Amino acid sequence: MGEEAWGRWGREDERGALNYIGAHEVIQATRLVKHGKVIALAQTLSPRTPVPGHRGSMMHFMGRDGGDYAAGGKRPGGFQFAEDTVVMPLQFATHIDALCHAWHDDRLYNGFSSNGTRSTTGAARCGVEKMGAIVARGVLLDVRDDSGNALAAGTAVTRTRLEAAAASAGVSVQRGDVVLIRTGWIETMLSDPRYYDGEPGIDVAAGRWLAEAGVAVIGCDNYAVEAIPFPSGQIFPVHQLLIRGYGVPLLEGLVLAPLAAAGATEFLFVAAPLPVVGGTGSPLVPVAIL
Amino acid sequence: MGEEAWGRWGREDERGALNYIGAHEVIQATRLVKHGKVIALAQTLSPRTPVPGHRGSMMHFMGRDGGDYAAGGKRPGGFQFAEDTVVMPLQFATHIDALCHAWHDDRLYNGFSSNGTRSTTGAARCGVEKMGAIVARGVLLDVRDDSGNALAAGTAVTRTRLEAAAASAGVSVQRGDVVLIRTGWIETMLSDPRYYDGEPGIDVAAGRWLAEAGVAVIGCDNYAVEAIPFPSGQIFPVHQLLIRGYGVPLLEGLVLAPLAAAGATEFLFVAAPLPVVGGTGSPLVPVAIL
Amino acid sequence: MGEEAWGRWGREDERGALNYIGAHEVIQATRLVKHGKVIALAQTLSPRTPVPGHRGSMMHFMGRDGGDYAAGGKRPGGFQFAEDTVVMPLQFATHIDALCHAWHDDRLYNGFSSNGTRSTTGAARCGVEKMGAIVARGVLLDVRDDSGNALAAGTAVTRTRLEAAAASAGVSVQRGDVVLIRTGWIETMLSDPRYYDGEPGIDVAAGRWLAEAGVAVIGCDNYAVEAIPFPSGQIFPVHQLLIRGYGVPLLEGLVLAPLAAAGATEFLFVAAPLPVVGGTGSPLVPVAIL
Amino acid sequence: MGEEAWGRWGREDERGALNYIGAHEVIQATRLVKHGKVIALAQTLSPRTPVPGHRGSMMHFMGRDGGDYAAGGKRPGGFQFAEDTVVMPLQFATHIDALCHAWHDDRLYNGFSSNGTRSTTGAARCGVEKMGAIVARGVLLDVRDDSGNALAAGTAVTRTRLEAAAASAGVSVQRGDVVLIRTGWIETMLSDPRYYDGEPGIDVAAGRWLAEAGVAVIGCDNYAVEAIPFPSGQIFPVHQLLIRGYGVPLLEGLVLAPLAAAGATEFLFVAAPLPVVGGTGSPLVPVAIL
Repeated sequence: MGEEAWGRWGREDERGALNYIGAHEVIQATRLVKHGKVIALAQTLSPRTPVPGHRGSMMHFMGRDGGDYAAGGKRPGGFQFAEDTVVMPLQFATHIDALCHAWHDDRLYNGFSSNGTRSTTGAARCGVEKMGAIVARGVLLDVRDDSGNALAAGTAVTRTRLEAAAASAGVSVQRGDVVLIRTGWIETMLSDPRYYDGEPGIDVAAGRWLAEAGVAVIGCDNYAVEAIPFPSGQIFPVHQLLIRGYGVPLLEGLVLAPLAAAGATEFLFVAAPLPVVGGTGSPLVPVAIL
Repeated sequence: MGEEAWGRWGREDERGALNYIGAHEVIQATRLVKHGKVIALAQTLSPRTPVPGHRGSMMHFMGRDGGDYAAGGKRPGGFQFAEDTVVMPLQFATHIDALCHAWHDDRLYNGFSSNGTRSTTGAARCGVEKMGAIVARGVLLDVRDDSGNALAAGTAVTRTRLEAAAASAGVSVQRGDVVLIRTGWIETMLSDPRYYDGEPGIDVAAGRWLAEAGVAVIGCDNYAVEAIPFPSGQIFPVHQLLIRGYGVPLLEGLVLAPLAAAGATEFLFVAAPLPVVGGTGSPLVPVAIL
Repeated sequence: MGEEAWGRWGREDERGALNYIGAHEVIQATRLVKHGKVIALAQTLSPRTPVPGHRGSMMHFMGRDGGDYAAGGKRPGGFQFAEDTVVMPLQFATHIDALCHAWHDDRLYNGFSSNGTRSTTGAARCGVEKMGAIVARGVLLDVRDDSGNALAAGTAVTRTRLEAAAASAGVSVQRGDVVLIRTGWIETMLSDPRYYDGEPGIDVAAGRWLAEAGVAVIGCDNYAVEAIPFPSGQIFPVHQLLIRGYGVPLLEGLVLAPLAAAGATEFLFVAAPLPVVGGTGSPLVPVAIL
Repeated sequence: MGEEAWGRWGREDERGALNYIGAHEVIQATRLVKHGKVIALAQTLSPRTPVPGHRGSMMHFMGRDGGDYAAGGKRPGGFQFAEDTVVMPLQFATHIDALCHAWHDDRLYNGFSSNGTRSTTGAARCGVEKMGAIVARGVLLDVRDDSGNALAAGTAVTRTRLEAAAASAGVSVQRGDVVLIRTGWIETMLSDPRYYDGEPGIDVAAGRWLAEAGVAVIGCDNYAVEAIPFPSGQIFPVHQLLIRGYGVPLLEGLVLAPLAAAGATEFLFVAAPLPVVGGTGSPLVPVAIL
């Protein structure tokens, strides 16, 4: 596992596999829209949105609200307003991992030193603000079992299983695609304390197969895309391969049941991370347009 | 100024003019894509992003970074990662105002009591999580002066000026449109301390004209859409009319110069607010697809 | 339960029972120091410090740290530094409740309207910044059982039990005292998930007895001073009586075992809440000087 | 400038000059109390409290307030309460610098590696939680000019000036003292935008003289204790000498005018930093008891 796509788009590139999406791919993706149906693929955000144990929950504070007026707050010219502030991890709920999020041997994707990621600046290289908006063909691969049940924690979603799901959906994975994989995990487990203890997800070979096919983004309805527990002796091997080696951003925590319920297999996909300078990712609302 | 669109989409409606966008409008909007060009219309987000004086700046904290590893942090299985947390107002940088953001007489859009907007819950009604993703036709109206200069603070962008801009662009405002108005303000003033002291923007009559035409969203390259200073004795009259009366969300802080530079006049527009439960708005990255 | 001490120190008073501490009491308290031993009575503060389920944990972020330099950060003139930011509730860990913290019938201590406590200002009346520093005689009452075991959750610490503890310690409760009550709860339960589910604590009659004796502050080694579960049909009755009726601030989450281990029964007590304007309380480190 | 006090209290020591305060010093300090007068030496904390330009302001959010009840919030059993959360730097307003705050050559006080100060843990060594509560003799040295005016920015407070102030006050600096230096800076400049641009303060020789005298803590009514602008080519030389070399914590942002107005020259001094695990300092309220 190494430096698969380093240099492919130049030594200064910080966008990785997103470069696969060109004007042609955008145009073709928009041609997929048949029904004018718009489906948001994200969890809502609140202090009750699950987070892994080592992270703090979201906080949502009202800086001004209706109660302040009920208590006698002034309303100059009659005007009333509410405003609010959040404290939230950027790796929160439905989010995208920027290419600075995971690495090994002190080198990020494309060889950038991880020493450039510091307290005072965030990530000097491969921050989420470098990604830009993502507009591409989305394909949905449903890898749940034959009865439509969620895969169990630890189940490896293999290349074979992905190919079968693609065949079943009548699609083939193409260069520039955003591939969304439905394991069923979030649907049954999100409110369970064990949600973050393990999950079904792709294995390294499946990740490599997708990356070699030229996909732009891989997303999943779990919290880390890859199978957990990890293979013995490895820690987040799929993150290491895809983010660092291939420059493929990961979409995590997707809500895919409504998309499946609509019968979607390929669609126009749009997602726009918040461009936090030096950020390691961003909560966002990926949108499927059918 | 009152209750223009209250009840138009039912007494429980919390989406207002976004209801004008139906499947037909979505399909038609996607048909506008000719070049496969994607333009993000947002400012970057950082502690240096301007905020009005009464609000705190964004804070961006690294919970783990490259420096931690440089200082000897453990890397189990070789894995290294970075993560981060932000503190930020939801009315921040390029953002959308939810329908709970502004009101008068203790009633929000559609008559909901502002007493439902409290510290503990945020807005029980018309929170940003009720908006859903926005996919529509976008139209760009350039109202800068004949020499292409930014309008001065306080300049009212009138219906006449909007009509002239539409004629010049060869477009007409239609039901379900997202109308983006370029005053030039952000381009010349964002780094100026006076950015928040005043601005050019639409007047009440122009806002009413757009709302009566059935636009779904109105956006502008300033911080409050409307002209400031306000007409004598009024405070945010356009907010009151559009958000509360007509249920039209406002997009603020847009970056429109690149869109204009691309020669865009009508385009596929996609924007997806973060669905913060009870939130008054959301920073986001509106996307124009040409 | 009503308005026991309202007006006692004037209609504008916001300090309540702290007024019992005059120059004489301060001087007498300093005369108690015999050994020059200083004992801090507080928990440490970190993201692992327990909080009730409805509150977010503390967050502690490094804005600059040693890792940044290890990663190559500049050190002008050789100078290196670290700085940090916390997000924390004011009702956190070992803390004091200001007189604006609890009330009923929309009236705070001394009759101030709770409408003055708003998002934009915090508490206009009885905020923690009005308390000032507290210097007084402290007395320690150990109410654990005869074997020195912690009282069980729900156990009412009665006036009788307090009197017995005082007799056993050879002290009597006097006007202006800071009374610290050791139940043993925090010592055995702080790391238990049930810490916040119930606790031993004083009952209403015991609270009234202490307040009538003129104590300035009441503290305890649990999270709410009073017994939980509450008597049927009541919610925080001791808070209501002491904070609102008598104007007695409460000290919660005290660490008292080291004080007891030192054999202290009466001592010089000093505590200084952070003067957050309009704050409802403050984490602090009460100090016993023996 | 080097390693003046390293090893003086053992190789594992993290408290530095605070070790000079023993039981004898505590007892003697309490004997200074004559009048029973208590003076808090701190600024109030609010979003309007000045901060240096590179730090975010304090934020203060109400999680529940009187407005929520005015708007109809439930009050089970009649009980009402307010609570709140702050976001604040630990180097904020009146605060103490922990010994991990400043260093050079990657070594903290007593030789600890600065690599132990990381995002995930804060400072493993010399964090503010290691300081404990400070109870000592305080002495006030007024170094304002002969007319009682504040010193100008950049004015070096020399050893000579300190000695003159001590003579004028009739005190001599002793081992274990907390020395508070009044320049007048905060009194005249706190609300001025230039407050953080420069300041009068002690020079290196004065700092060395105090440290060699065995003082436990040095405090000042400015933001950094030392004169700014710095001597040519140096950056925070007094911080480097006192914090790193001698292990002397610094108290910054003190409010000393009321203490001076009371005619205090020596007094019982008590201050207790919040024990934030790994924190670089803490806002606090130092207390003088006369």
